[in-house]
Amino acid sequence: MKLDVAFLPAGDPRDVAVVIDVLRMTTTAAALLGRGMRRLTIVAGTDEALELSATTGALLFGERNGLPLPGFHGGNSPVEHLDTDYGEQSAILCTTNGSKAVEAVPNARHLLLGAIVNARAVARVALELATESITLVCAGTDGVVSLDDVLGAGCIASEIVASQPDVRLSDAAKIALMVARAPAGIGATLTAAHHADALRDLGFAADVEFAARASSLNLVARRTSRGPAAFEAVVPAVG
Amino acid sequence: MKLDVAFLPAGDPRDVAVVIDVLRMTTTAAALLGRGMRRLTIVAGTDEALELSATTGALLFGERNGLPLPGFHGGNSPVEHLDTDYGEQSAILCTTNGSKAVEAVPNARHLLLGAIVNARAVARVALELATESITLVCAGTDGVVSLDDVLGAGCIASEIVASQPDVRLSDAAKIALMVARAPAGIGATLTAAHHADALRDLGFAADVEFAARASSLNLVARRTSRGPAAFEAVVPAVG
Repeated sequence: MKLDVAFLPAGDPRDVAVVIDVLRMTTTAAALLGRGMRRLTIVAGTDEALELSATTGALLFGERNGLPLPGFHGGNSPVEHLDTDYGEQSAILCTTNGSKAVEAVPNARHLLLGAIVNARAVARVALELATESITLVCAGTDGVVSLDDVLGAGCIASEIVASQPDVRLSDAAKIALMVARAPAGIGATLTAAHHADALRDLGFAADVEFAARASSLNLVARRTSRGPAAFEAVVPAVG
Repeated sequence: MKLDVAFLPAGDPRDVAVVIDVLRMTTTAAALLGRGMRRLTIVAGTDEALELSATTGALLFGERNGLPLPGFHGGNSPVEHLDTDYGEQSAILCTTNGSKAVEAVPNARHLLLGAIVNARAVARVALELATESITLVCAGTDGVVSLDDVLGAGCIASEIVASQPDVRLSDAAKIALMVARAPAGIGATLTAAHHADALRDLGFAADVEFAARASSLNLVARRTSRGPAAFEAVVPAVG
């Protein structure tokens, strides 16, 4: 089994790919699943998202430049969902950056959304599905490497190595592991990310704190056959 | 002052750029300067390198797949030069990978070659030259991120931060710093690089050991006005 990390969307992985956008798309996805949401669809364009919500009745969440959009049911903040029970509902996540990352891995046999909050569950589901390789794809921000995503990749890599110590690590995977194992710890490392600063300035400090709670959720969004950006909640076979 | 790291050649930096190919081009460049070599020219093609050597009398060193080429004065091993005095001579380094990285930063106002062995000197010369930004450009290997180069970038970044603590770090620079400051230490981290394994298999273990001797050389190769890939030795103003 090979484990690789792409610091930005690239490389056309063919077996298991995990898209990581810690601040905040994939953390929000995990938070929604944790509150009972059954299905998620990732959409880039606002018009397409509004139309899909109108025709399917799915709840619509999203952001532009970190802030909620008018006409949506909510923004892209994971903590805004923590008191809601979405039992078996469907949601649309409208986010340019996360959507681009999902679109960048069209040929992956299996696609998961990964974050720090569900790192262990992602590692387990990825190992259950993979036959040859797992590729952790960091979303980055507009083509620039994001520390928060590389940290997320490192947290997932660390759980994969713990379950399967003989996995073959690429140099990039080793770098991500060093970031996750930095003496400062996951919380302080996430806080050091440029994007964490930007979110704090917008009043979303609680999101950054939530996003650093490693493996606090035992659910993963997995792409279904219903569409290239349609995901459903799965739990690892071994909890 | 901004400090950024490119994990692979990209981004078109405009102020000070430092190309890093720790195993082995930029380490060998520093070793040659340390033995008195005055000028270096980086050339990609074998035929061009042989012709330039014949017309200028410059010594010719290089590799293909890690091994010396026939008709050359030596390979790309830094330790093979340690007993030679090259007082004021010129050399051509023929290396595809390093050459590509140099070609990828054509618009940098100043271009340096950096390695772990001259990290402190590179940091000082870069800070002397820079007005806005320093970009550490990792050569990688055929488009794949190399741990050895990111470690080299982290060692140079660490020296820059030590000299100028208020430098603004990109997320990528922070990641490189975490790699350089990993508890395992520089030697063990370099040994973990895929390229270090490959060199050991080829019999070049001494090169890997040499390449990890942080700031053992106080010289830097700096691009001159004589050509896009022509370098001369400089020493930091403050030793």
